Amino acid sequence: MASDSPSSGRRLNVNNINPHVKAAKYAVRGELAVKSEEYRAYLQAGLSDLPFSEVISANIGNPQQLDQKPITFIRQVLSILENPLLLQKKDVLIDHLGYKTDVIERAEKLLKVVGSVGAYSASNGVPAIRQSIAEFLERRDGFPASQADIYLSAGASSGVNTLLHVICQNEKTGILVPIPQYPLYTASLSVLNATCVPYHLDESKNWGTDLAVLKESYERAKADGVDVRAIVIINPGNPTGASLTEEDIRSVIEFARQERLVILADEVYQTNVFIGEFISFKRMLRQMQKEQPGAYDNVELASLHSVSKGMVGECGHRGGYFELVGFDPEVQQEIYKFVSIMLCAPVIGQCLVELMVNPPKAGEPSHELYQKEYNAIFDGLKERATALHKAFEQMEGVECGTPQGSMYLFPTINLPEKAAQAAADEGRTPDEFYCMRLLEATGVCVVPGSGFGQKDGSLHFRTTFLAPGTEWVGSIVKFHKEFMDKYR
Amino acid sequence: MASDSPSSGRRLNVNNINPHVKAAKYAVRGELAVKSEEYRAYLQAGLSDLPFSEVISANIGNPQQLDQKPITFIRQVLSILENPLLLQKKDVLIDHLGYKTDVIERAEKLLKVVGSVGAYSASNGVPAIRQSIAEFLERRDGFPASQADIYLSAGASSGVNTLLHVICQNEKTGILVPIPQYPLYTASLSVLNATCVPYHLDESKNWGTDLAVLKESYERAKADGVDVRAIVIINPGNPTGASLTEEDIRSVIEFARQERLVILADEVYQTNVFIGEFISFKRMLRQMQKEQPGAYDNVELASLHSVSKGMVGECGHRGGYFELVGFDPEVQQEIYKFVSIMLCAPVIGQCLVELMVNPPKAGEPSHELYQKEYNAIFDGLKERATALHKAFEQMEGVECGTPQGSMYLFPTINLPEKAAQAAADEGRTPDEFYCMRLLEATGVCVVPGSGFGQKDGSLHFRTTFLAPGTEWVGSIVKFHKEFMDKYR
Repeated sequence: MASDSPSSGRRLNVNNINPHVKAAKYAVRGELAVKSEEYRAYLQAGLSDLPFSEVISANIGNPQQLDQKPITFIRQVLSILENPLLLQKKDVLIDHLGYKTDVIERAEKLLKVVGSVGAYSASNGVPAIRQSIAEFLERRDGFPASQADIYLSAGASSGVNTLLHVICQNEKTGILVPIPQYPLYTASLSVLNATCVPYHLDESKNWGTDLAVLKESYERAKADGVDVRAIVIINPGNPTGASLTEEDIRSVIEFARQERLVILADEVYQTNVFIGEFISFKRMLRQMQKEQPGAYDNVELASLHSVSKGMVGECGHRGGYFELVGFDPEVQQEIYKFVSIMLCAPVIGQCLVELMVNPPKAGEPSHELYQKEYNAIFDGLKERATALHKAFEQMEGVECGTPQGSMYLFPTINLPEKAAQAAADEGRTPDEFYCMRLLEATGVCVVPGSGFGQKDGSLHFRTTFLAPGTEWVGSIVKFHKEFMDKYR
Repeated sequence: MASDSPSSGRRLNVNNINPHVKAAKYAVRGELAVKSEEYRAYLQAGLSDLPFSEVISANIGNPQQLDQKPITFIRQVLSILENPLLLQKKDVLIDHLGYKTDVIERAEKLLKVVGSVGAYSASNGVPAIRQSIAEFLERRDGFPASQADIYLSAGASSGVNTLLHVICQNEKTGILVPIPQYPLYTASLSVLNATCVPYHLDESKNWGTDLAVLKESYERAKADGVDVRAIVIINPGNPTGASLTEEDIRSVIEFARQERLVILADEVYQTNVFIGEFISFKRMLRQMQKEQPGAYDNVELASLHSVSKGMVGECGHRGGYFELVGFDPEVQQEIYKFVSIMLCAPVIGQCLVELMVNPPKAGEPSHELYQKEYNAIFDGLKERATALHKAFEQMEGVECGTPQGSMYLFPTINLPEKAAQAAADEGRTPDEFYCMRLLEATGVCVVPGSGFGQKDGSLHFRTTFLAPGTEWVGSIVKFHKEFMDKYR
């Protein structure tokens, strides 16, 4: 290619930039997503020779791009934070715009501690918002939490980036990452030139954590001279949708204690749980510390949360936080310095975190509507998950466990040999090939399993169940039948 | 210390984390800033045994933390974007809340292209917002600009982080960085383990760029085997406040062409110019390309801008963008992938960028108030800069050029030998020692010159001129006299 040659004159080309950036892969926004956006622009321009009339972006957990409406209480408070002059007309807000008194009070309270949302906050976030998060964690887990251990971030992704930056010492540093995984982890480790140590989740047990497999991955990496020092757990799972049992969580903590591994618990889907209840790593660690005093004191845990998922679904605001448990104070200082370089997380996003962890309480004026909206979103997601799952059950060669949580289904697809051959002819993996044909035929954009990692020989795709209606589900079923007929 | 010892049991300690994070320095939010926040909390708690009654945070360009009010038009539009249900009550907005029709129209226009501000946008930003930025650049520079070359970012800091990540190939990669500089550059290069190649600005020429010095730094680094491939220019200067002349800019572009250096133009203070006019690197590059067809075609330029500075001053919203000129399309694809890993810049911050680059025009309903507020902020900053400069002129041993731009003054301080000795006894540099005593005596927090880099043997501090009133300026004058009397 032209750019390889120094004669192109440019200083930077794809062969002399940062090789670790080049090596990073991020399929969630890769070729398929780009192509789907082209189709969308094409349709918006009024062109109509495509076999579908709408693009369904089921490739990314982006609720408000699809059907989900923002929660009224949250957005009313944010509107006042953006324009505090509205507080000079409280009567208009109440009488003419339907703002409840608790909306106004919350906005006043936040403005008092934030100042202007246009000002930088402390690097680790507004102290009073960290305090509110700590109180939420105490209510959630039944154990103390301290604002000093909480760091606001621009979504959980930015928190993961911070933690991996600090933890990874050099290319020998190994981080245990579940397979399949959200590709933020492998991409960040690529950029950092650290070592990803994959461990496979057990599809036969609803994508649970198989301790024997985990140990084997760990021992193999250690034997190869890798300094394995942390383990990533995504619970509820992405892309798997799995919700871990108490037993699974306990065994991971026990393993981390034995092998001195820092636990990175990605818990952004903690309210997206359809079966059972969410159990936080923090709660379980404190529980185990209580049961066996002294035994788990040295376990280091970082737990991440976000406003992007759950019923809040405010991805575009880039709000999130992480809590550190058991970290060395000097290491925390380095984390503080690292986040300082980027100054602070978006302040309006920080306020949104506060609204998420401290919603209107029973008896407060906004509570009823809040609860109604919240429940409707939850029920809608569960219904859609169930409907999609039902469709998958009817599809030839498709296997998919009962939806447990998060925003995704991750079915296995057993494709005919002829499809694999056609894929190879195109230079694609069979799952990529399948997803590309699906997009071209239906406008539905999903992500091939290879973007998350999967066992050799197995094929999957990840789809969100956020899109409304049943038409798009029907179009997947129809496509699948035709695909199988063609390549059988 | 306890954490050094494996017996502490923790896996992570300050000696085994990422050494490049540990090596990074970021004085703008360092020890002095932390201490100033302690004082602030102390005063807020009603404790009164300090020799001052208020902390003045002159260490960071954070306009809305101090006196600067947000611009009404901007915040009115943002309030609607956060709560689009307000559009169902346009009459109330207009009749009771004083919103003008162009506020409502702009909000409607932005919502149409953004969808919900709670949804992720495209990784490089909302296409229509990139288009609006391109049109602004065409108006500003008189040359074409394309939305495809524009990348929205979470403030300019995040843009710098992206660009340095892609440009730096390995530890031999050298980036020319002006000294003194905003420490984002040295800190980011530390984290990336690339080589900072410092070049000193010429204090005797109002902190202009001295080509001979620049060449010498470049040649020395090259001789040491460093692969110098980019040059950072901050114009108007931070911390220097300098505003580069056309001649300076032309000579930097010519030098970049000769030595095949990518130009990173940090132009976030482009509207904070008191003397002369701002000239963008893009405009000058296009001008030179026009004058000598073919000669400058291979120059690669990235120019950064932000909503945090200027009269907008919306730091907390973390909005910004960069424009690429002359970059290889394959390299741009890698930049797109890199920003995708963090998903997108905050969407409300992206909207704020659009409002900044496309303010109300003459004749539109919000124009008059916008212009009035904008000019009042500009005039206020200029007045404060002048008053502070006047005070510095009267202080013994302090030298400071006429304020030209940005939000800072960066005076030289000539301190007595006894002060240097006292500083050494405390393990501090003399400028750190001076700034610490200033904070303790007056509550005014500034940043020592060593935090930005300065010529050996010279001492400075950086102060913003954002704080209102003259009392704090008076307290600096008084402190300085007492300090000099004590150590003379």
